[in-house]
Amino acid sequence: MANQVFCDISISTDGYVAGPGQTAEKPFGDGPVDGLHAWMFDTPDENKAEIDQVVAAGAFVMGRNMFGPGRSEWDLSWKGWWGDNSRKPLAMEGGTTFTFVTDGIKSALDQAREAAGDRAVAIAGGAATVNQYLAAGLIDEIRTHIAPVTVGAGERLFDGVPPLSLEIIAVRGASLATHISYHVLH
Amino acid sequence: MANQVFCDISISTDGYVAGPGQTAEKPFGDGPVDGLHAWMFDTPDENKAEIDQVVAAGAFVMGRNMFGPGRSEWDLSWKGWWGDNSRKPLAMEGGTTFTFVTDGIKSALDQAREAAGDRAVAIAGGAATVNQYLAAGLIDEIRTHIAPVTVGAGERLFDGVPPLSLEIIAVRGASLATHISYHVLH
Repeated sequence: MANQVFCDISISTDGYVAGPGQTAEKPFGDGPVDGLHAWMFDTPDENKAEIDQVVAAGAFVMGRNMFGPGRSEWDLSWKGWWGDNSRKPLAMEGGTTFTFVTDGIKSALDQAREAAGDRAVAIAGGAATVNQYLAAGLIDEIRTHIAPVTVGAGERLFDGVPPLSLEIIAVRGASLATHISYHVLH
Repeated sequence: MANQVFCDISISTDGYVAGPGQTAEKPFGDGPVDGLHAWMFDTPDENKAEIDQVVAAGAFVMGRNMFGPGRSEWDLSWKGWWGDNSRKPLAMEGGTTFTFVTDGIKSALDQAREAAGDRAVAIAGGAATVNQYLAAGLIDEIRTHIAPVTVGAGERLFDGVPPLSLEIIAVRGASLATHISYHVLH
C-alpha cells in the first residue's frame, strides 16, 4: 500500500503562506508573517497533538524556495534556515539528509516514499510546491493551521489549483490557530 | 454605546465568497459555489447557533452586487433574489425594508445603526462591501464559515484589505463548515 501523503501548512486568515520579498534574512518575506507560525513556536504545549502529527512523517518534500533564498545557481555553502536548535519543530533533527531532485514533483515524491518506509510522506512547502502537488492530485490529506492575522500579499495556498472537493476530518481551535484537517476527495 | 458591527460570511477554503460571472440566474457566479452555503441550507439544525447569531442583527448592510445582478441603471422591477420562502435563512422575513444608499459606506452604516436600535448591525456582503468596511476599520467582529471546497477564482474576502490583527473568539467544527469568530483588533 502506498504511503499516505499529507501536507501541514500554516496560513493566514486570508490564505497566504508567506509574504512577498523572501530573502535570506526574511524567509517568510514581508508583512506580519511572524504570526503565521506563532502557534508552533509560542504555544507548542497547547498544540502538541498537531506538532506530533507533523513530526510523524517519514520524509518531507520541500520546494527550493523553502530550502533557501537562492533562485539561480546553487550556493553550495547554504545549508538551510534551520540550525540545530530550530530543527525539532520541523523534525529536522541531526541526521536529516537533504536529497536534491530536479526532475519533477513525481520523482521527488517517489524518492520520498522510498525514504519514508511505511511512514507517511509530508509535502512541507512552500506554497508553490504544495499547489503543484494539489493540482496533480497527489495529496491525500491537507491540514491547514489558520493564524488570526491577514497578510494581504505574497504566496497563496491553492493559487492556480483547480477546484477541489474536501471532506472535513477534524477541527480544533487553539489560541493562535484554528486547525482543520481535510481529506482531498479524488 | 454604538451598536456592535459584525460580519458573517461563508467562504471557500481558498477564501472566495463567490465565483466569477454573477448573473440573475447564478447569484454566486460560476464554479462549485453551491458548497459555500450548504452548511446553512442542508444542515440548519447542526448549525442553529451560528444561524441564530446572524438573524439576531437589527439591520443588514449589503452591497448592490449582493442585492441584484444589475450594474448600471436600476431595474426597478427587481426585488432581490430572496423570495418569501428563501428569506428566513437570511432573516429577510416579511416586513424587510430595503433602503438604497448611494453616498458611501459610512452613510449606509449610520442609517443601519439607526434602524437597528440597540441591536447589532450586520455587514451582509458581498465581498467588495465587506472588504470596504474591513479596510475602513468599521467591523468589530468577523465570523468566517469555511466550506470544505475550493473555488479557484472569483470574489475574495480580504482582497485589498490592509493586514489585520485578529483575535480568535470561538471555533466550532461542523460537517459542512468550520466556524471561526474573530475580534478585529484596532
